[in-house]
Amino acid sequence: MTHHEQDLTHLKERLITMASHAETAVNRYIKALVERDNETASRAKEEDRVIDQLEVEIDDLAITLLAKAPLATDLRLITVAMKISHDLERVGDEATTIARRAVELNQEPPLKPYVDIPHMARLALEMLREALDAFVSRDPRRARAVIPRDKEVDGLNKQLHRELASYMVEKPATISRCLNLMVISKALERIADHATNIAEEVVFLYEGRDIRHLPVVKAAAP
Amino acid sequence: MTHHEQDLTHLKERLITMASHAETAVNRYIKALVERDNETASRAKEEDRVIDQLEVEIDDLAITLLAKAPLATDLRLITVAMKISHDLERVGDEATTIARRAVELNQEPPLKPYVDIPHMARLALEMLREALDAFVSRDPRRARAVIPRDKEVDGLNKQLHRELASYMVEKPATISRCLNLMVISKALERIADHATNIAEEVVFLYEGRDIRHLPVVKAAAP
Repeated sequence: MTHHEQDLTHLKERLITMASHAETAVNRYIKALVERDNETASRAKEEDRVIDQLEVEIDDLAITLLAKAPLATDLRLITVAMKISHDLERVGDEATTIARRAVELNQEPPLKPYVDIPHMARLALEMLREALDAFVSRDPRRARAVIPRDKEVDGLNKQLHRELASYMVEKPATISRCLNLMVISKALERIADHATNIAEEVVFLYEGRDIRHLPVVKAAAP
Repeated sequence: MTHHEQDLTHLKERLITMASHAETAVNRYIKALVERDNETASRAKEEDRVIDQLEVEIDDLAITLLAKAPLATDLRLITVAMKISHDLERVGDEATTIARRAVELNQEPPLKPYVDIPHMARLALEMLREALDAFVSRDPRRARAVIPRDKEVDGLNKQLHRELASYMVEKPATISRCLNLMVISKALERIADHATNIAEEVVFLYEGRDIRHLPVVKAAAP
C-alpha cells in the first residue's frame, strides 16, 4: 500500500469511527427515552462534542489530502468523505435533539408505550449503516437500495404526526408531550434523510452520476 | 487575471446567484403566507429545482477546479464554496417547507396577523446576506459579526413556540394552524443556522481558524 493509499484508508477509518459514534448516540437516547433514563439523556450535549471534533479532524485530513494533488477519482472520494462527515455531524445533532426532548418528556407521566419511535429509529439506523457499508465496500448497488427506503420512514413520521395531532385535539392536556414526540419523530425522519444523502453520494462516487435532485426538469428563474 | 483566477471568480459568481435565488424564494413564500397567495406558494417545489441544479453545477465546477492542483489557499476557498452551496440548497428546502405550510394554512381562516414570522424572516435573510457579503469581500470580521445574531432568531422561535403551545391548549380548534406556524418558525430558525454555518466557514477561510464547535472540551467516548 502506498503512502497515499494509507492516507485514504485512514480517512475512511475516521469516517467509520464517526458513523459508529453517531449510531451509538441515536440508540442511546432512544433507549433513554423508552426507559425514562434522564441521567443518560442529560449528558447528550457533552457526548456530541466527540462527533463534532471528528468532523473538524476529518475536514483537516481531507484538505491535507486534497493538497497532495491526487487523481480525479481520489478528489471525488475526498470531497464525498467531507460531505458524509457533515451528514454524520448532523445525525449527532439530531441525537442530541432526541435526548433533550426525552428529558422534557420525563417530566410528565408517559403518554403511551413507545412502539413507533423505536421502530423508526431502527429503520433509520439500518439505512445509515447500509449507506456507510456501501461506501466502504465500494458498492453503488447497495447504496442505491438504501434510497427508496426513505419513503417508509417518511410515511411513519407522517402517520405518527397525524395520530399525535388528533390526540392533542382530544386531550389538550397532552399537548406538550405530543409536541415533544413530534420533534423526536421528525429528528428520526431527518436521520433517514441524512442516510439517503450519504447513499446518493456513494452512488455518485462509484458510478460518477449525480442522482441528487432527480428528475431534472427545466424550471423558470425566480 | 489568470485563467485560474477567472475560474475562482466564476465559482464565486455562481454562489452569489444561488444565494440570490434562495433569498428570493424565502421572501416570496413569506409574502405568499402573509397575503394568502396560494398560487405562488404551490409553485415552490418546481422553483426549488433551479437552486438544486445550481448546487450540482457548483459541485461539478469545484471538483474541476480542485483537479487543477491549486494552492492550499485555493483548496480551502473551493471546499468552503462547496459547503456554502450545500447550506444554500438547504435554505431552498426550508423555503419550500414554508410554502407548503402556507398552502395548508390558507385552507382555514387566519389565526391572527403575522408579525413575528415576517420579522424572523427579515433577520434570518439579513444574516444570510451579510455572511455572503463577507465571503465576497473577504471580510472575516463581518462574518464574525453574523454569528451572535443567531441567538436572537433562536429566541424569537422559542418565544413563538411557547405562545403557540399555550394557544393550542386554550383553543384546541387552532391546533393544526398552530402546528403549521411552528414548522414555519422552525424553518426560519434553521435558515439563520445556515447563515451562521456560512459565516463560520468564511471566518475559517480567511482566518484559517476553525470556529465551529467551540468551546472545545474533551469528552468521553461513547
